[in-house]
Amino acid sequence: MTTLLKNGRIVNVFTDCIEEANVLIRDKKIVGAGDYTSADNVVDVGGRIICPAFIDSHFHIESTMLMPRELAKVCVPHGTAAIVADPHEIANVCGADGIRFFMESSAGMPMRFYYTLPSCVPATANDENGAVLTARELEPFYKYDRVLGLAEMMNYPGVIMEDPMVLDKLQTARHTHKIINGHAPLLGGRDLDKYIAQGIQDDHECSNIAEAKEKLGKGQWIMIREGTSARNLAGLIDLFDEPYNRRCVLATDDEHPYDLMTKGHIDRIIREAAALGKNPLIGIRMATIQAATCMRMPFMGAVAPGYFANILVLNDLDTVDVADVYHSGKLVCKDKEMLPVELNEIDTNAYKAVYSSVNIDPLTEENFRVVPEGEKCRVIRAIPGELLTNEEIAALNFSKDNGVDVEKDIIKLAVCERHHFTGHIGLGYIAGLGIKRGAIASTVSHDSHKLVVVGTNEADMAAAGNHLASIGGGLCVVLGGKVLADLPLPVAGIVSEKDAPEVAEENRVLREAVRKLGVAEGIEPFMNTAFISLSVIPNLKMTTKGLLDVNSQVLLPLFI
Amino acid sequence: MTTLLKNGRIVNVFTDCIEEANVLIRDKKIVGAGDYTSADNVVDVGGRIICPAFIDSHFHIESTMLMPRELAKVCVPHGTAAIVADPHEIANVCGADGIRFFMESSAGMPMRFYYTLPSCVPATANDENGAVLTARELEPFYKYDRVLGLAEMMNYPGVIMEDPMVLDKLQTARHTHKIINGHAPLLGGRDLDKYIAQGIQDDHECSNIAEAKEKLGKGQWIMIREGTSARNLAGLIDLFDEPYNRRCVLATDDEHPYDLMTKGHIDRIIREAAALGKNPLIGIRMATIQAATCMRMPFMGAVAPGYFANILVLNDLDTVDVADVYHSGKLVCKDKEMLPVELNEIDTNAYKAVYSSVNIDPLTEENFRVVPEGEKCRVIRAIPGELLTNEEIAALNFSKDNGVDVEKDIIKLAVCERHHFTGHIGLGYIAGLGIKRGAIASTVSHDSHKLVVVGTNEADMAAAGNHLASIGGGLCVVLGGKVLADLPLPVAGIVSEKDAPEVAEENRVLREAVRKLGVAEGIEPFMNTAFISLSVIPNLKMTTKGLLDVNSQVLLPLFI
Repeated sequence: MTTLLKNGRIVNVFTDCIEEANVLIRDKKIVGAGDYTSADNVVDVGGRIICPAFIDSHFHIESTMLMPRELAKVCVPHGTAAIVADPHEIANVCGADGIRFFMESSAGMPMRFYYTLPSCVPATANDENGAVLTARELEPFYKYDRVLGLAEMMNYPGVIMEDPMVLDKLQTARHTHKIINGHAPLLGGRDLDKYIAQGIQDDHECSNIAEAKEKLGKGQWIMIREGTSARNLAGLIDLFDEPYNRRCVLATDDEHPYDLMTKGHIDRIIREAAALGKNPLIGIRMATIQAATCMRMPFMGAVAPGYFANILVLNDLDTVDVADVYHSGKLVCKDKEMLPVELNEIDTNAYKAVYSSVNIDPLTEENFRVVPEGEKCRVIRAIPGELLTNEEIAALNFSKDNGVDVEKDIIKLAVCERHHFTGHIGLGYIAGLGIKRGAIASTVSHDSHKLVVVGTNEADMAAAGNHLASIGGGLCVVLGGKVLADLPLPVAGIVSEKDAPEVAEENRVLREAVRKLGVAEGIEPFMNTAFISLSVIPNLKMTTKGLLDVNSQVLLPLFI
Repeated sequence: MTTLLKNGRIVNVFTDCIEEANVLIRDKKIVGAGDYTSADNVVDVGGRIICPAFIDSHFHIESTMLMPRELAKVCVPHGTAAIVADPHEIANVCGADGIRFFMESSAGMPMRFYYTLPSCVPATANDENGAVLTARELEPFYKYDRVLGLAEMMNYPGVIMEDPMVLDKLQTARHTHKIINGHAPLLGGRDLDKYIAQGIQDDHECSNIAEAKEKLGKGQWIMIREGTSARNLAGLIDLFDEPYNRRCVLATDDEHPYDLMTKGHIDRIIREAAALGKNPLIGIRMATIQAATCMRMPFMGAVAPGYFANILVLNDLDTVDVADVYHSGKLVCKDKEMLPVELNEIDTNAYKAVYSSVNIDPLTEENFRVVPEGEKCRVIRAIPGELLTNEEIAALNFSKDNGVDVEKDIIKLAVCERHHFTGHIGLGYIAGLGIKRGAIASTVSHDSHKLVVVGTNEADMAAAGNHLASIGGGLCVVLGGKVLADLPLPVAGIVSEKDAPEVAEENRVLREAVRKLGVAEGIEPFMNTAFISLSVIPNLKMTTKGLLDVNSQVLLPLFI
């Protein structure tokens, strides 16, 4: 089967030029761009731009709450040919089974899912997560072509301090001649040298240009990251200039499904850079041949002989206005409309760890009752819109509402282990969420994805927790024992099985329900529950074992 | 063991900048470049240039007639860290044993010998060479880290015509995820597309800029080749400009040892490009990080954390004046003086095919006597300084000197199979060599390295052939039954065991001896003997089976 795209103006990513030519495709691959004239199927693109489809060099599928097939449906119309997914979240819940599950469910999609292997599962020793992945567990995955290497090595202190478990993972990756991705915000100088010397080839955490230039000058590829929350494009825009641009690629890291649907994906980054005055051909080069080179994807990222026919037809170059998308030679999106995606049937019975991931005994009010051992408590102070938290000391009145003080915006927080029925619950108080009644619960809580419950009373907290256990995980809002709204995430307790518009709608309804608990606009308590247990973001967090001082990594008693 | 190179001005190949910093080396690798201050061994380079050592991306060891250790001694003082060797010649004589022999004898040298696997052994079906290497024979070599892939695919007609044996080799290489080097002079258009589509990633045969730009634009890396004979730098000098330079590397392909000793190696190409007005930092980038990227050599080609400490101290940047050379952290050349190289002892008994490669029965005058079957003969016309030959028809007088006519510069030519005692001899006449008496013989005859003898009489021809058989191969000049000079090449009949100055001196004496046969200055008959049997260079060549019309690949009778 051959297809000819004729009358195109082709973006040549090797020469940064646009060339008038016809592109001949045979089966999955490009025959060439030139004076080709005939094919089984001839498409006149009418002088429009033809360019290679885009690659997102670093992505977490789980942040979208979408299954791979649903994610593909959202990304492909924006011109995405491939993502490099780090299945860090599902691996923290389900271990190697989680990685296998994503790999199987993303095979044969109209967008290629490459994987890098989660390097930090669990994130820290204080995390009670679902599984531990050492170098030995990861090793069998390197044999797959779609596995490109070891994912972001977030544990940079472990690299610098030469933690043997960390060095083992790095060495195993190097022996396979696959890549090792970096993640080392603000690291510089000799510590950065030591980190890079382990073969950690890139970084997507640069937030200022000096940091990026130091890392690039020391040999790292820079991933310019522009996602839903972490947005570094403006700060790194100078990287689009010489001599830096040839060592850069593009990534989104974490994206909400609504943003992907409405704003775009990698196309958006190139478009925004163009709006800032940068040549879109540079952005396209970063997102195609350079990404393929950096991540070592053979035959990806160019409209050239032998390359996979992952090709876009653009209505306009500067706005990166994607009309048609070809994936492996097949038209998968036409005039901005996604064509039907074949379902990839999976035997869910083969993935018990994925589909029954909320392993917790029924919760009762007792589980959420604090036994007072004094009047002064450490309280976690949440800051609206930030992941940082602070410690506050509060004198609580335990004779009323077991210490909860809605007037002072101090309510109860429980972080429950939910992987292995241990019954471990870290219990305490949180200030700043604005919840005046009822409770919310979530099984999305980075990185170990505990069951987090916050509320004003034990009955609603127990009801919220038990509801999530009954639906296999997700997010919910409870008032007076009644579930006001939920967002089921039956896959590992963190991923939905619905499509992006449905998930977006459930999310909207859920966030509206939160208002019924008295939460003011501008405060999103589910963002706090998602990160309240992440033991690497300062200053005071709650683990399944109780309060943790992040800076010292020491557990603290609730009472002083 | 740590070494600090302080007060350097360091060439950063990632940013094309020069940065003042100190470089710290630990054992074989670079710790970093920065404010490092102490080490076991501190060297003040006094503000001189520090740059990564150079990589020759395509090289034939055999053309230098030197063993790897002797070659290293010649290249290292010119700043070479690594070569990518295609052992095509020794493989044509000794097959897989030849490749193994070079790999073993080049291990642990102060210059890294990478290999690509000869793709065309034998070169054509008309070549009676020493061994046939199919994909199956090559496959076991891919497991070695020093084997980078499949060497120059010269058989581009075979690729385009989809010869199954050729496609098998290409597919095997692709499956290993290693590289495939190209060799397709003047190929363009759809044929080039088809060739590149097989994953053939580079080309070193570009002789004009339009050809180079087409290949580069279609995704190939361009190796700018500047060797002893094939010199493409001037014609391709525009590739040093944007946007081309980032897809180019440097190579010499074939070098005479005398040129390496006196003119330089990769340093010479960068120097010559600088003399033509091109920024030496671009040349250095091509010869370092880009070569390492193109050829997939991990941790090679930069002064950066984790990279092998292959580092040069230059007295001057524009003239690429190499003073000191560090290889894997060890000083191997100081103030332009090579430090002693440890011998790599090899069990020569383990390489019988290499050390007894001239397998031919004793030659007699009878072997060189033409039985006349008419008066008109096809005669090969050699052209001084060219590899091209033409066909001439001459009326020879067989009643005198068996057809030899020194007055007309027509003498006798014999191409003898010398690998398997077949006794096959292609016999005929050659014009234009200027030999007036005696004979010369050589076991260097591309690509199958037959024994080639040319002379005015059968007695000297037999003596010359028998002398080479007695010394295991080489080159010699015979007059009146006496050997005037020889250059022994006991390794596969194509490589010496002496050092470069000795080989150069033997070569000088040999070429002087040729003058005693009456050959005028400016004619080098040993160049003709080296290529007179190469069945891919037009128009008329001599094989072990007789005359060959190169263009039709049809054997022709001597008599018309």
